[in-house]
Amino acid sequence: MQQFLEESKKISREIATLSGEIKNRVLLEMADALMEHCDFIVSNNEKDMSHAKLNNLPEALLDRLLLTGERVEAMANALREIAALKEPVGRVLDGWVTQNGLNIQKVSIPIGVIGIIYESRPNVTSDTAALCFKSGNVCVLKGGKEAEHSNSAIANVLRHVLAKNKIPEQAISLIPDSSREGVATLIKQDKYVDLIIPRGGEALIRYVSENSTVPVVKHDKGLCHIFIDEAANHEKAIQIAINAKVQRPGVCNSMETLLIHKDVAPYILPPLYEAFMSYNTQLKGCEVTRKYIDIKCATQEDYDTEYLANILNIKVVKNVDEAIFHIAKHGSGHSESIISENYTTVNKFLNEVDAACVYANASTRFTDGGAFGLGAEVGISTNKLHSRGPMGINDLTTFKYKIYGNGQVR
Amino acid sequence: MQQFLEESKKISREIATLSGEIKNRVLLEMADALMEHCDFIVSNNEKDMSHAKLNNLPEALLDRLLLTGERVEAMANALREIAALKEPVGRVLDGWVTQNGLNIQKVSIPIGVIGIIYESRPNVTSDTAALCFKSGNVCVLKGGKEAEHSNSAIANVLRHVLAKNKIPEQAISLIPDSSREGVATLIKQDKYVDLIIPRGGEALIRYVSENSTVPVVKHDKGLCHIFIDEAANHEKAIQIAINAKVQRPGVCNSMETLLIHKDVAPYILPPLYEAFMSYNTQLKGCEVTRKYIDIKCATQEDYDTEYLANILNIKVVKNVDEAIFHIAKHGSGHSESIISENYTTVNKFLNEVDAACVYANASTRFTDGGAFGLGAEVGISTNKLHSRGPMGINDLTTFKYKIYGNGQVR
Repeated sequence: MQQFLEESKKISREIATLSGEIKNRVLLEMADALMEHCDFIVSNNEKDMSHAKLNNLPEALLDRLLLTGERVEAMANALREIAALKEPVGRVLDGWVTQNGLNIQKVSIPIGVIGIIYESRPNVTSDTAALCFKSGNVCVLKGGKEAEHSNSAIANVLRHVLAKNKIPEQAISLIPDSSREGVATLIKQDKYVDLIIPRGGEALIRYVSENSTVPVVKHDKGLCHIFIDEAANHEKAIQIAINAKVQRPGVCNSMETLLIHKDVAPYILPPLYEAFMSYNTQLKGCEVTRKYIDIKCATQEDYDTEYLANILNIKVVKNVDEAIFHIAKHGSGHSESIISENYTTVNKFLNEVDAACVYANASTRFTDGGAFGLGAEVGISTNKLHSRGPMGINDLTTFKYKIYGNGQVR
Repeated sequence: MQQFLEESKKISREIATLSGEIKNRVLLEMADALMEHCDFIVSNNEKDMSHAKLNNLPEALLDRLLLTGERVEAMANALREIAALKEPVGRVLDGWVTQNGLNIQKVSIPIGVIGIIYESRPNVTSDTAALCFKSGNVCVLKGGKEAEHSNSAIANVLRHVLAKNKIPEQAISLIPDSSREGVATLIKQDKYVDLIIPRGGEALIRYVSENSTVPVVKHDKGLCHIFIDEAANHEKAIQIAINAKVQRPGVCNSMETLLIHKDVAPYILPPLYEAFMSYNTQLKGCEVTRKYIDIKCATQEDYDTEYLANILNIKVVKNVDEAIFHIAKHGSGHSESIISENYTTVNKFLNEVDAACVYANASTRFTDGGAFGLGAEVGISTNKLHSRGPMGINDLTTFKYKIYGNGQVR
């Protein structure tokens, strides 16, 4: 593995300097190649699927694993969209001239070698490979064992296009070893790997964060809140609360706890209850909430639970300060929203809540690369440093300073 | 310690929202307080000094540890300069409106709780405390045992000013435990600490990087090169090479290895030799170099050594590609410079060398916050992500997205 990663590091210098013209041409050829080898990919996917069925994988996982002609076409189209994105390398991020005439430019550059650890969905293989390639990075992919054949088929198709264009195939590589040991080795290779992006269950991410000597950008849990202030527009408040919970409960930017100002609780709780009932949402509430609507009791543990399901905690709070305090205590720093028409309260919430995305009068569901207008998404970072929130292709770059002198010495 | 850090995290919300007006007034009061309590600080420093002399600390370390009235005044002035810096919190870094009318603002915010681990120089205590405070962060300082009394005296003076202004004193705190165990505990508290900045020897930094579960911004070694191209202006080349080596050999941005294009080596080596001899620089060279000047032989190990002393390796290379290759192999990604009048060669070097600061026709010695015009410096980061190169006060911030909606749902 070490030797393999040493080679990845070495070729990363070459990949970093490819022109946008070449990178985009190669990406379009990769899209064509995926379509051309669709049968090959689907037949390899069938091997994974039959294996998964033998192992009694749950229906939801089987669906995530499945590739069809249509899904391969979607993968190809994603590559075309990535090719169309603006060049992420070489952007001048800042620049100035010092007193003694040094012309300093802060310029975006590729990160180098990026290790990506992910599970089940095979389209992640082509998506992340393309995002890394477009941003001039070498990627080392570590997919799940259950998608072994699918991932390998996809990677082979992409690598074939690289080879045809005389670009080192190792720019896109799959770690063959699908065991946890492969991950254990990968995350210790800080000499060769510049960044690790783990996408998967909490246990995996905790393991990687605790043991990696390579910087990690996490994509873990979202424990998001919405606070309905006393000055909320009731209609907007109900619409947004419903949307943030029920539109897609299984994702990280959906709401888990709804906080409501005590002065509006009596008026807004009954219609909210009606609305949630029509979506079969399971509601749990604090003691005050339960005075107004007849629902189960929410425990302290519930406030720390990311349900990823159509279940919601409701808690009545005294004021915006208590809402902010509750969020600081229970939130995961992902997405938080206030519904209020009061200028000062909205600003207080936006300023004081510490999360990647803090909303006023909108659903937390907008926290993603597409909704943000960033184009294809790497994921949603729950890091506080380097990347935070929706990660677009620019987040796969770092920077260096180029300094133009004319003989300056100190 | 855990309870103590939990409290740090808690008050970090309050510190984050202090206005620039208050922060700057407090910083100026701190500067006055340092002057007022100068005798108290110096007398505590005397305890450390006599202890250090008993322990036979080398002269250079004694000098770094020493505080005098003049040095305390310099510390106070540094605080005044920090007060005068532009507010780092709340800068709008980017902003746009999405198709559906969400107004997205990417805004700089404090990082939260920053742990700083450092050695000997007591002025680091007031400098970093002030930089963290100005950027709205809580700092947890872990100084060296040898400066225990000095650091504690300085921190007490600063904390007294906080208390007088009804700001939680724990915004600036010293970890009392001066042992390695204190560090070991601190770097595992990712729940409460957002960033660790270790400044010190390679062993400390390696230890922290390998064991920390908190993100780390390293300040470690600089193994810097200058490449004199065939198209170099000889006079500039010699001046810059001399400056980069001899002006202050003990710092991270000084040059350790000089690379020279083979076609100019015969002409430039003899005058270079003369110039370096007048500064008593100890030269080591490759076989080709030693054909032209009579110096000792440089080993492979020498090319990986950060001398931090008036010693220099000289190596003759075929062309800019070999220079770039050598730098990729032996450099530490800190500062690299090319001396050349050739447009294409300069651009190739600036584009292909991967380092925090890549120079054309200037000394590597300019890699620091002051020379970059960033104001007071936190240090020089050798990270590739988050912070890279000279760290100014803006590098003690991260960001969040504020999103202004008007009822949007998905």
